[in-house]
Amino acid sequence: MKDLYELDNYEVGYDIPAVPGMDASDIQTPCLVVDLDALERNIKKMGDYAKSQGMRHRVHGKMHKSVDVARLQMELGGACGVCCQKVAEAEVFARGGIKDVLVSNQVRDPAKIDRLARMPMLGARVITCVDDESNVSDLSAAAQKHGMTIECLVEIDCGAGRCGVTTTPDVLTIAQAIDAAPGLTFSGIQAYQGAMQHLDSYADRKEKIDIAVAMVKDAVDALKAEGLECDIVGGGGTGSYYFESTSGVYNELQCGSYAFMDADYGRILDRNGTRIDRGEWENALFILTSVMSHAKEEKAIVDAGLKAQSVDSGLPVIYGRDDVEYVKCSDEHGVVSDPDGVLKINDKLKLVPGHCDPTCNVHDWYVGVRGDTVECLWPVSARGKAY
Amino acid sequence: MKDLYELDNYEVGYDIPAVPGMDASDIQTPCLVVDLDALERNIKKMGDYAKSQGMRHRVHGKMHKSVDVARLQMELGGACGVCCQKVAEAEVFARGGIKDVLVSNQVRDPAKIDRLARMPMLGARVITCVDDESNVSDLSAAAQKHGMTIECLVEIDCGAGRCGVTTTPDVLTIAQAIDAAPGLTFSGIQAYQGAMQHLDSYADRKEKIDIAVAMVKDAVDALKAEGLECDIVGGGGTGSYYFESTSGVYNELQCGSYAFMDADYGRILDRNGTRIDRGEWENALFILTSVMSHAKEEKAIVDAGLKAQSVDSGLPVIYGRDDVEYVKCSDEHGVVSDPDGVLKINDKLKLVPGHCDPTCNVHDWYVGVRGDTVECLWPVSARGKAY
Repeated sequence: MKDLYELDNYEVGYDIPAVPGMDASDIQTPCLVVDLDALERNIKKMGDYAKSQGMRHRVHGKMHKSVDVARLQMELGGACGVCCQKVAEAEVFARGGIKDVLVSNQVRDPAKIDRLARMPMLGARVITCVDDESNVSDLSAAAQKHGMTIECLVEIDCGAGRCGVTTTPDVLTIAQAIDAAPGLTFSGIQAYQGAMQHLDSYADRKEKIDIAVAMVKDAVDALKAEGLECDIVGGGGTGSYYFESTSGVYNELQCGSYAFMDADYGRILDRNGTRIDRGEWENALFILTSVMSHAKEEKAIVDAGLKAQSVDSGLPVIYGRDDVEYVKCSDEHGVVSDPDGVLKINDKLKLVPGHCDPTCNVHDWYVGVRGDTVECLWPVSARGKAY
Repeated sequence: MKDLYELDNYEVGYDIPAVPGMDASDIQTPCLVVDLDALERNIKKMGDYAKSQGMRHRVHGKMHKSVDVARLQMELGGACGVCCQKVAEAEVFARGGIKDVLVSNQVRDPAKIDRLARMPMLGARVITCVDDESNVSDLSAAAQKHGMTIECLVEIDCGAGRCGVTTTPDVLTIAQAIDAAPGLTFSGIQAYQGAMQHLDSYADRKEKIDIAVAMVKDAVDALKAEGLECDIVGGGGTGSYYFESTSGVYNELQCGSYAFMDADYGRILDRNGTRIDRGEWENALFILTSVMSHAKEEKAIVDAGLKAQSVDSGLPVIYGRDDVEYVKCSDEHGVVSDPDGVLKINDKLKLVPGHCDPTCNVHDWYVGVRGDTVECLWPVSARGKAY
C-alpha cells in the first residue's frame, strides 16, 4: 500500500489533500477519506464468502476506479480480476498490473474497438460484452488486425432495462456468431441485474433475481445443448450476491459498493430486516468536510458541495452524529442544520456519500487513514477515464 | 486559443478526447464540447452590456474552472478578473496569469489562510470574503507573516441563506476590524443573491433583488458614514445582472453560467417571458455522447451517465431534437427514448447539461469546435481543486 507517486513533486492543499504520516486532523478538506481497517474487513469478508461458495469474484472497478483498491481486493479478498465499464478504465487497470479485465459493457465506437483489441499487448486477458450481432464482425476485424484475441460475453438484460438481449434465441444467435468469428472467443454470459440492487426489501430483491436466474439458466442450458460452454456466468452486486452465489448458474460475482458502502445502499435490508450498513458492511468511505461559516446560529456551512460528491441518490449522511444534519447541497457548500449550535469553525465532519461511484469520480485522491494517522494516498487512477 | 499542453505526450481516447485539427465526428465520447462561435458571442454580449452600464465584470471562474475561458472573457469580454470559491482554484487562475482574483467565499482553515496570504507572490491581486470578526485576526497574522496584503470584502447574506452576515451593524463591525488589521485592506462588499437566480419569473427575481439591493445600500451608506469606502460592491448572476447593474449600488458583476448556459438556467424567463436560452444566451456547452446499445427497439443507450455530468438540477436535454429524449441516467449510461427507432449505433447526440458547474467539474477537457472541426483543447484547469 505504498503511494505510487513521487510525493515530493506534490503540494498539500494544491495537488493533494494529505501526505502519508500526517496527523489525520491536518488533512485538507474536502476530500475522500478511507478507513483502511474497515475497508480491509469488508474486502476480506466478501472474499471469504465468495471462496466459501466456490465463486470467483471479479470486483467492480468502476466503483472506486483505483488500481490500489483493486490490488487489495485481489491480495486480501482473493478477487480473480476486475470488471469496469469503459475501455479507458480497462486500460488503466491493465497498465496498473491487473491481468484479468472485463469491460462489462458494449464497445461500439471504431477507435474504442481498436484500443480494446490492442489491450492484450498490455499483458491482460481482455473480455467484453456483446448485445448485437452486428458488433461481432467489428470486434473480429480489430482482433485479427492486431493478432490478438478478444473474449466475448453475451449480455442478457435480466431486469436492468439498459443494454443486453432479452431472449434465449438472441443469446444463441450472438454466441454462435462470436464462436464463428476469427480473433474472438465465446466466454459466457454477462447478466447483472442492476435495477434491483437498491430495493429495500430482501424478499423483493429475491423475487427479481429469481426471474434473472431463470433467464440465465435457460440461456446457459441452450448454449450447452449447442456445444457452447460458458466459462463465465457473471453478475451479482452488493444487494444480491448471495442469490447469484447460491443459484447454481452463476460462477462469477461483480460486487463493487460493498468495499466502501454509501448512504443509499446502506439503507437496504438484509434477510433479517437489518440495514446492511449496520452489520453486513462497514462504512469505509467518507467525504471529510470542514465548517467554514457559521454566521447563522442554527446552521453551519461546510466546504463539501456538489463538486465533492454526487447527490443523484440523495444527500450525504453525517457519520456518527445525531445532533447535526446535512440538509442542503450547492456547488461548493453544504448546509448543516445545527439546532443546538454545537459546531465550531474548522470542525470536521465525516460524510457518508449518498452514492459512492459518482462521488469517487469527482476526486483525485483517496486518503487512507488508520486510527489518527494518514497511512497512504491512492490516486483515483481511472477518474475521468470515461471514453 | 492555443492548447497549453504538449499534445504529443497525450493519446486520444485515453488521456484526451480529441486533438486540434480533427474532424468533429472523430471526437471520443463522452466529453464536453464547446461551440466556440456561440461562446464568443455570449462573452462579447455580456462584456458589451457591462461596459454600457459602467460595470466591471469579474467573471465567475468556478463555473468553467478554465484559465483559457477566463482569458477569453478578459480579452473579448473586457472582464476585470475572476472570482472563484476555493483557494486552490484561485491559485490555478493566478498561476495561469489572471492577475485579479477574488475568492468569493470564506477562508478559515489555517493552511488555506497561509496559502491565500502567499498568493500575491504569484503576481495577483488577492481578495477574499469575511463573515465573522474572528476570521480577521487569522487573516491579518498570515498576511503579516508573509509581508503581503490581503484585500477583504464583508459578505452580506442577501438571500442565499448560506454564508454572510445579515445586518448592517454586523457589516460595520467586521469592516472596521478589517480596516484596523495590519496586512488587510477593507475593499468593500460581497453580496451575491444565489437563491433567486433560478426563479422562473422575472418579476419574482426582481422582487428578491430589490430586497438585496436595499440591504446592500444600507450597508454601503453606513460604511461611508464611518469613512469606509467600498472599492468593490460585487454580486449579480446570469439571472439577475441587469438588476444589479441598474441598482446604483453594485459596481461589479460576477456572472458565470451565461457563457456556457445549461438546461436548468435556460428555462428561466426574461422580462418578455422568453426563455433565456431562446434569445438572451446561446447554448455553447454540450456533453457529446454516442449511442452504444439499441437492443430494445424503443430506447437507445448512450455513453454519458452520472460520471459525465451532474443531474442535481435535472436531466440533460438533447439539443436540437424533438424526436428523442434523455429519460434516465445511471453511472455510465443514459437511456434515450427513441419511439420511432431513428437512432443508430454510434450516432452522436449533443446534450445540454442540467447544471453546467458540477458537470464541468467531472471532465478534464473542453473540446473547442468551430463548424465541423476541432479547433482547440482546453484543460479544465481547476478541476479537482476543491481545497
